[in-house]
Amino acid sequence: MSITIAVPRETASGERRVAIVPSVIKQLDKLGVTLRMQRGAGEAGGFTDDLYEGATLVDDTSALYDGADIVLRVQPPSVEEAGKLPEGSLLLGFLTPHEGDSRIKNLQKRRVSSFALELVPRITRAQGIDALSSQGNIAGYKCALMAAHLSPKLFPMLTTAAGTVRPARVVVVGAGVAGLQAIATAKRLGAIVEAYDVRAATKEQVESLGGKFIDTGVSAEGEGGYARELTDEEKAQQAEVLAQHIAQSDAVVTTAAIPGRPAPTIIDAETVQRMKAGSVIVDMAAETGGNCELTEAGKEVVAHGVTIAGPKNIPSMAATHASEMYARNLCNLLALLIKDGEIHLDWDDQVVADSCLTHDGEIRHAPTRERVEGGN
Amino acid sequence: MSITIAVPRETASGERRVAIVPSVIKQLDKLGVTLRMQRGAGEAGGFTDDLYEGATLVDDTSALYDGADIVLRVQPPSVEEAGKLPEGSLLLGFLTPHEGDSRIKNLQKRRVSSFALELVPRITRAQGIDALSSQGNIAGYKCALMAAHLSPKLFPMLTTAAGTVRPARVVVVGAGVAGLQAIATAKRLGAIVEAYDVRAATKEQVESLGGKFIDTGVSAEGEGGYARELTDEEKAQQAEVLAQHIAQSDAVVTTAAIPGRPAPTIIDAETVQRMKAGSVIVDMAAETGGNCELTEAGKEVVAHGVTIAGPKNIPSMAATHASEMYARNLCNLLALLIKDGEIHLDWDDQVVADSCLTHDGEIRHAPTRERVEGGN
Repeated sequence: MSITIAVPRETASGERRVAIVPSVIKQLDKLGVTLRMQRGAGEAGGFTDDLYEGATLVDDTSALYDGADIVLRVQPPSVEEAGKLPEGSLLLGFLTPHEGDSRIKNLQKRRVSSFALELVPRITRAQGIDALSSQGNIAGYKCALMAAHLSPKLFPMLTTAAGTVRPARVVVVGAGVAGLQAIATAKRLGAIVEAYDVRAATKEQVESLGGKFIDTGVSAEGEGGYARELTDEEKAQQAEVLAQHIAQSDAVVTTAAIPGRPAPTIIDAETVQRMKAGSVIVDMAAETGGNCELTEAGKEVVAHGVTIAGPKNIPSMAATHASEMYARNLCNLLALLIKDGEIHLDWDDQVVADSCLTHDGEIRHAPTRERVEGGN
Repeated sequence: MSITIAVPRETASGERRVAIVPSVIKQLDKLGVTLRMQRGAGEAGGFTDDLYEGATLVDDTSALYDGADIVLRVQPPSVEEAGKLPEGSLLLGFLTPHEGDSRIKNLQKRRVSSFALELVPRITRAQGIDALSSQGNIAGYKCALMAAHLSPKLFPMLTTAAGTVRPARVVVVGAGVAGLQAIATAKRLGAIVEAYDVRAATKEQVESLGGKFIDTGVSAEGEGGYARELTDEEKAQQAEVLAQHIAQSDAVVTTAAIPGRPAPTIIDAETVQRMKAGSVIVDMAAETGGNCELTEAGKEVVAHGVTIAGPKNIPSMAATHASEMYARNLCNLLALLIKDGEIHLDWDDQVVADSCLTHDGEIRHAPTRERVEGGN
């Protein structure tokens, strides 16, 4: 009997993505698996049920999970749902290992082998599985667009009969995957783009996209492609040089994140006050506290004449392509977990071992285990 | 005594533009005029009072208009305000000559010499005064951005570790100033752009921007840079060919307008139904009835899985640059009306004669006169 993969309709509020899209069905066929979809799962992402050729469609999650071997999700299951997953099944998705202890305990109890996409190691071989990057790419694009959309200025230079309009000045803070895509998108639109990252090594990448790197004299290379946290002095110096550039800009996109921790405050209220009336800040880190002191998650606020947008779940705004890329990430991970039509977990494979959150009744991710079981 | 120019704060709901921006003050100085601004007039456009160097700031419109020679506006004055303008003064702005009879009668009664920017002839010499073009340019940019913002797909092609995302297909209907800028903006963002205009002569312009011209086999060159209205048969043929292209697109921007008349319906409900789920229509003609049958002015509606946006007063969304370009248009027109520091109306100048709506108690624009006075 072949492996059955179950894909539920996402239940988190505002989530429009889906874990599997029709274009990856061929890839799943090659793995020799059977696809079972909850009706309407892809609808919000633009994938109607009829597009899922060969998949079995079911109405509710009990029918979906009955006898299923692998469950694929975008967002983590609710605590309740985690407790109803098929015993001993595999679960792949974003699982926010740094929070949600009750959910994690339920996965443990059900002896679910759960793989968190947040834990996929950032090594070359795992690039095709790196959903933080694929979704960050989309978020960077969307945030630059949002900045242009909210700005009372045009981004490109226009030479018209009514004179010349100068290009907008855009500052991008954080030059990870999302920041780089924000730079690329603002450049596409014709803006003059400056960018900053605490990791000085990103200078070359910023410049390769046509951006100008802001040198604050502070560097902080960290682990896993992320930045380490800065000292107070470094922060002050960084903030002052950055504030000068931000004060002269028309739009700012901030993308500075530290995994599992609150986002660093990079733009304080005073800096916002120094900005020109009509300027725009799009804060990609709104959900983890924001890079701007005045950001309110899920809202657009105006302070000192500056519009500050704190969008939530940005990849979901481009649900079609975000789902496509995410589905490919999942298929690439599945290819590591399925051998000759059977589930085979190779713990010598760094990608398998590192990304596993729970397995066989144990929490395998050490920091999570210490947090969840430390208080027992 | 020098000529006094008065610039009120715009009163129309949602209007963020202002008729004069600080950067044109030098140009006004050369004309030898005195500038009087209503306090806060530029604020919504990002121009605070302190930026208007040398201008007199006043609080209310009675102080503003007292002894003023020329009034500069973006939107037409209200009926009441038109009746309070300084007797015999000049008024320059968008004046919607095709409607608002009471307002026009009030301008006539006050013997105001009013110049409507909608009536500026589309001749080479008047390009710098053509505010329909300058504002249309901005509207085209904003509508393409809005389409990208609302789309669940990315416009550019992305080649990532999670595979390649194909570029979006965008159809632009109407290749006037706004349509051409929408094409340019969608191309900047990396989309594949097809465009259509009833005037086959626009083919070359579309292609020069990297767009592909949709050939429906129907042509309708009209006067003044606009298209003539089509026959029913022509409309059906146009609609069917267009519908095929629209059905395959990810986003559509419609910009088809006939001055002073309802916008032509180009996308009917049936065509919307043929579109892919998740597609987007941005209808620039929403305010005059819409190019899409399902458009609701000022709203975003979803029909058959397609998001249809009908934005109102689009140039106002880019109020800073829209005001800048508009202010330059006005200054260029003023330069034709002021000679050696005095108002001098040269009726032999086609631009002056054609754009004049009312003067010395008469309605000078023939179609408006016939409509307003025909019923007396």
